[in-house]
Amino acid sequence: MTQATRVAIIGATGYSGIELVRLLQSHPQVQLTYLSSESYTGQAISEVYPHLAGRIGHALDGLDPAAVAARADVVFLGLPAGKSSELVPAFLAAGLRVIDMGGDFRLVDGAVHEQWYKKPAPPRHVQAEAVYGLSELWRDAVRQARFITNPGCYATSAILGLAPLLRHGLIDPASVIIDAKSGVSGAGRGVTLGVHFAEVNENFQAYKVNQHQHTPEIEQVLGQVAAQPLTVTFTTHLLPITRGILCTSYATLKAPVTAEALRTLYTGDYAGCPFVRTMPLGSFPATKQVQGSNYCDIGLAVDERTHRVTVISVIDNLVKGAAGQAIQNFNLMMGYGEGVGLDVSPLYP
Amino acid sequence: MTQATRVAIIGATGYSGIELVRLLQSHPQVQLTYLSSESYTGQAISEVYPHLAGRIGHALDGLDPAAVAARADVVFLGLPAGKSSELVPAFLAAGLRVIDMGGDFRLVDGAVHEQWYKKPAPPRHVQAEAVYGLSELWRDAVRQARFITNPGCYATSAILGLAPLLRHGLIDPASVIIDAKSGVSGAGRGVTLGVHFAEVNENFQAYKVNQHQHTPEIEQVLGQVAAQPLTVTFTTHLLPITRGILCTSYATLKAPVTAEALRTLYTGDYAGCPFVRTMPLGSFPATKQVQGSNYCDIGLAVDERTHRVTVISVIDNLVKGAAGQAIQNFNLMMGYGEGVGLDVSPLYP
Amino acid sequence: MTQATRVAIIGATGYSGIELVRLLQSHPQVQLTYLSSESYTGQAISEVYPHLAGRIGHALDGLDPAAVAARADVVFLGLPAGKSSELVPAFLAAGLRVIDMGGDFRLVDGAVHEQWYKKPAPPRHVQAEAVYGLSELWRDAVRQARFITNPGCYATSAILGLAPLLRHGLIDPASVIIDAKSGVSGAGRGVTLGVHFAEVNENFQAYKVNQHQHTPEIEQVLGQVAAQPLTVTFTTHLLPITRGILCTSYATLKAPVTAEALRTLYTGDYAGCPFVRTMPLGSFPATKQVQGSNYCDIGLAVDERTHRVTVISVIDNLVKGAAGQAIQNFNLMMGYGEGVGLDVSPLYP
Amino acid sequence: MTQATRVAIIGATGYSGIELVRLLQSHPQVQLTYLSSESYTGQAISEVYPHLAGRIGHALDGLDPAAVAARADVVFLGLPAGKSSELVPAFLAAGLRVIDMGGDFRLVDGAVHEQWYKKPAPPRHVQAEAVYGLSELWRDAVRQARFITNPGCYATSAILGLAPLLRHGLIDPASVIIDAKSGVSGAGRGVTLGVHFAEVNENFQAYKVNQHQHTPEIEQVLGQVAAQPLTVTFTTHLLPITRGILCTSYATLKAPVTAEALRTLYTGDYAGCPFVRTMPLGSFPATKQVQGSNYCDIGLAVDERTHRVTVISVIDNLVKGAAGQAIQNFNLMMGYGEGVGLDVSPLYP
Repeated sequence: MTQATRVAIIGATGYSGIELVRLLQSHPQVQLTYLSSESYTGQAISEVYPHLAGRIGHALDGLDPAAVAARADVVFLGLPAGKSSELVPAFLAAGLRVIDMGGDFRLVDGAVHEQWYKKPAPPRHVQAEAVYGLSELWRDAVRQARFITNPGCYATSAILGLAPLLRHGLIDPASVIIDAKSGVSGAGRGVTLGVHFAEVNENFQAYKVNQHQHTPEIEQVLGQVAAQPLTVTFTTHLLPITRGILCTSYATLKAPVTAEALRTLYTGDYAGCPFVRTMPLGSFPATKQVQGSNYCDIGLAVDERTHRVTVISVIDNLVKGAAGQAIQNFNLMMGYGEGVGLDVSPLYP
Repeated sequence: MTQATRVAIIGATGYSGIELVRLLQSHPQVQLTYLSSESYTGQAISEVYPHLAGRIGHALDGLDPAAVAARADVVFLGLPAGKSSELVPAFLAAGLRVIDMGGDFRLVDGAVHEQWYKKPAPPRHVQAEAVYGLSELWRDAVRQARFITNPGCYATSAILGLAPLLRHGLIDPASVIIDAKSGVSGAGRGVTLGVHFAEVNENFQAYKVNQHQHTPEIEQVLGQVAAQPLTVTFTTHLLPITRGILCTSYATLKAPVTAEALRTLYTGDYAGCPFVRTMPLGSFPATKQVQGSNYCDIGLAVDERTHRVTVISVIDNLVKGAAGQAIQNFNLMMGYGEGVGLDVSPLYP
Repeated sequence: MTQATRVAIIGATGYSGIELVRLLQSHPQVQLTYLSSESYTGQAISEVYPHLAGRIGHALDGLDPAAVAARADVVFLGLPAGKSSELVPAFLAAGLRVIDMGGDFRLVDGAVHEQWYKKPAPPRHVQAEAVYGLSELWRDAVRQARFITNPGCYATSAILGLAPLLRHGLIDPASVIIDAKSGVSGAGRGVTLGVHFAEVNENFQAYKVNQHQHTPEIEQVLGQVAAQPLTVTFTTHLLPITRGILCTSYATLKAPVTAEALRTLYTGDYAGCPFVRTMPLGSFPATKQVQGSNYCDIGLAVDERTHRVTVISVIDNLVKGAAGQAIQNFNLMMGYGEGVGLDVSPLYP
Repeated sequence: MTQATRVAIIGATGYSGIELVRLLQSHPQVQLTYLSSESYTGQAISEVYPHLAGRIGHALDGLDPAAVAARADVVFLGLPAGKSSELVPAFLAAGLRVIDMGGDFRLVDGAVHEQWYKKPAPPRHVQAEAVYGLSELWRDAVRQARFITNPGCYATSAILGLAPLLRHGLIDPASVIIDAKSGVSGAGRGVTLGVHFAEVNENFQAYKVNQHQHTPEIEQVLGQVAAQPLTVTFTTHLLPITRGILCTSYATLKAPVTAEALRTLYTGDYAGCPFVRTMPLGSFPATKQVQGSNYCDIGLAVDERTHRVTVISVIDNLVKGAAGQAIQNFNLMMGYGEGVGLDVSPLYP
């Protein structure tokens, strides 16, 4: 039996952080050694999250980078935008492996980062070390990485849905429209009027129309896949559910293709990917069918009347959209099996 | 004081029918004289719907067309597809005015009807009498009508959102994509696995992708507005809410236009329309802000990067998408004020 | 036609305040002249609440008591605990009629107030002027009042359900247990972790067990009805809904009584009360059947095995539990019909 | 390594059945060999439940008792009331071990069964073989059993909450009132108006007041614990959530006791029970904190004013209230560790 890897989670009481705790506590190769929380320093984790009572005994630490470096081999960060930029260089310098679930290091072009995030870009040489952790596209790079920038939740869902179409040159790259819908946990645990139950329940609305910061991330990655720059129209909506993202993506076919052929293409492209499931034709995925799991489920339709393809992709934003994908990347980076600790059934209904 | 109009509702215990009852019971020009229900014949309406206890004393009748003709001047129908076709000719022959909330008479082309509804089209000469009751487009025709085919809920929301763009020739008619989301009441009160709480709650999914029967209705009407045939890509999704439709519609601009100019166009086009509200720029409507009311609220965005316009339109599917719009049409047809009985505030939160 | 009463609402952008706005804007005897909001001073009300766009043009004022006195005849207050105590004396001194929807003035015994509210009691002579505005019990006193302390939402539901049993001496006053459940809007629009959608949705829990500040209010009022002091066990729970309170109340019968006899008693006691509806035996009210309306619906059961009576009572906490009841009291105080402006159908489904 | 136990599930596509599938597919000692479904015979299980795609390849069988006996060692039944009575005798005769999740065999007294279930009681000698599978009370009996009648979901939650009080004689047995609330999945997957999303969402109501069939089950078991017969008042309500039961139970203390002493008693009584967690004083459990897990969490309060104790207990009705508890019983019966296959973290949020 190999020795367990010592893991720190910075931001352990946010929704992505606590989802890491849920999944990592039963990961056979992991020992959780450092859980930090700015808001709850010193409290037992089960006081903050009673669902973990009797499952994990840790008290929450404050953030002391030197202590992290002393107690951990790998550090996961689940922090608000701008915070990781300040911490990652020191962690890397201390020889830690780093997986950042936030957006600070995803964009290669610093000017684009500043335009969309309205914050300074991180140092260029640090960003240059970051490997974009979408293993379904770049598994080998993830295996070599010591610093992973974990993809955004919306971006994961949209990119996995569209990548095969662009890789194989089937669609007009200028025609991509992504109509995305997310559950509320994607906004984090911070309290704002926008997440007040009475404002969200029995309600539905768009937000950040044409302005969501995952737009350039999607464009960057899909542009790499297509081997040409592209822009997308991307709209985000808030669903009155806790977990789940569904992207309905549209694109114009360059030439006629049958749905059967498309589906064959998708199952081929994702043949070695344990967490991507392509639905039978005529079926479309529901967010709840991946609830609590690391799956991305994809449905396909071709409209012969309009020469468009419609791709519907779903994930659990806290798992494949955050903590689960982070662990998938961790596994690859550490040489463990890609799915270790992630073989969790979706919870349905 | 004028004499009240005697009104019959056929299908009064469906969700559209009972919404008619809610609204018409306080309409000053209406006397409800005949409420039919196949499922609950003979029962008091408050046994079936306790929220109406003490507000309406009617017992539910079976369906006897002769009795309807004897007791009513105007008949509203809220029935499953295919049923109105059988009843409307007799009602018209008996001299009644008719407002059909179902889809039987909406499509002008019988072949298109049969293709999308998978049912026989109604007799051509009866369909020819039907006026499509979207008063924001064709108020004068509604005023002259004696037989109204009330627009579909999705169609109402999509068309009101897109009509100004096509009327003024601002967009490529081949570029229209409508991503639509509806609450569960749109599926009616019938019990199926698809409306089981445990299957819908904390869930979101698409259905009838490229196959919804409102597709040709939207194409027919937008084609008339654009004065040229067009096809649209139309996707429907099921929201875990009871009431509300939101359509996110996309189209490619023929030439650059500012959002300000667009908004001016919309407020101009809808200047005489008491139930259409155009949001300030930068704001987008939420379904709950029209809950229980006859409003259609519209938000607009222009994306200079992709040369696309995004239109977001919301309605309460049971009001502007069914019963409320039917009453609006009734008012115009009878020469009453367009908004009589409909001046109900949205219920928020 | 009589002249309209000029009305001010202090705290107009809280959930109770905005519900007052919804209902009063169509009250035929009311002119809204002053709407204050600490958070949104200077903004148009439709910016804060877009559902009111086109319905009300007011901008929100800050709180200037002298201006209120100059512009209004009656003032409604919808404020957090402790705030009304500071404002009401001045409003009364200025000759205004006052309806306070908060809890500052409900408890006659200042020591009890301080024990449960953890705040100083208001001046004794001011409290002494306050009439407890539960018109179903004390309509005449309400008619004479110039200062109404509006009942709490939980208290309204519990008291209306239990009063007939105590008035007629049918139950052991020491046996009363009230198991109460409320929607989230009862907590107001303030943002806290406790109202975060992801914490409330698909969840249910108790809070303030044995410690809710409506406990002494219920005891005070039921004690007056029973003409003897009593204590109750009172538990509050948070429902994942926006609007609605349901109280399941239990008590031990002193002597056997049939359900039929009980129901006759209730319909008799509430004969002159337009907003109390007693359900047929065997039926029990659902919160949604009063949604948006001023009704309190009551269901009754007798268990011969345990000699207990079970009373189930529902209200919309924002209407009969706050704004609607306040208007009902306003109407009585001003000599208008008790139900003017409140004849709004529940919204169902 | 021991040989796997071959397991059949009769009624595998109901909500309890499919939850068994979710949990048993990762149970290290189990081989699923027979999954029956009346409604979906012949279909792949992932067609009916897409969340299981790629996780389980079974097609659904019809019900052939001989085939079950040939292919399985243990059979779980998840069937509507009355169906198990017909099947269990044959399974027992064939030498199978049986775990029935339905209510047919729970009540010892046939007359009581017929009164509350409105169905014939099962044969007396078969019922006599059934061991009531609440291992927290009767673990040794479960270990010896070959036929388990699995407790009802409401009964499990109520009994675990109240048993210590009665075992130690702290409360008046005649004083017990249980106010119970359940999510919709407890009603099963059958389609009725009562589970229609539009009827349940944003709604809350009681049902079967004083008439729920779990009443005599609770009385039977608590009577055994108290060593004297007792009756309880038991009210059931429908929550607008999918999973979860919360029971708020009330009883009168015979003599004063502190909350601290009570809590010590509970933690002592449940010391060897891996799935019962007693909350810290002042905290009360939420249904979501056990979502997807086999825990029963309990909170306690003593009201010195009324001399009553309030116990709040929560479970996931599909896990500890059905499939999870069935597996717990299976483990004990087979000599495996009590928690094998059940060490699943609750899913939160």
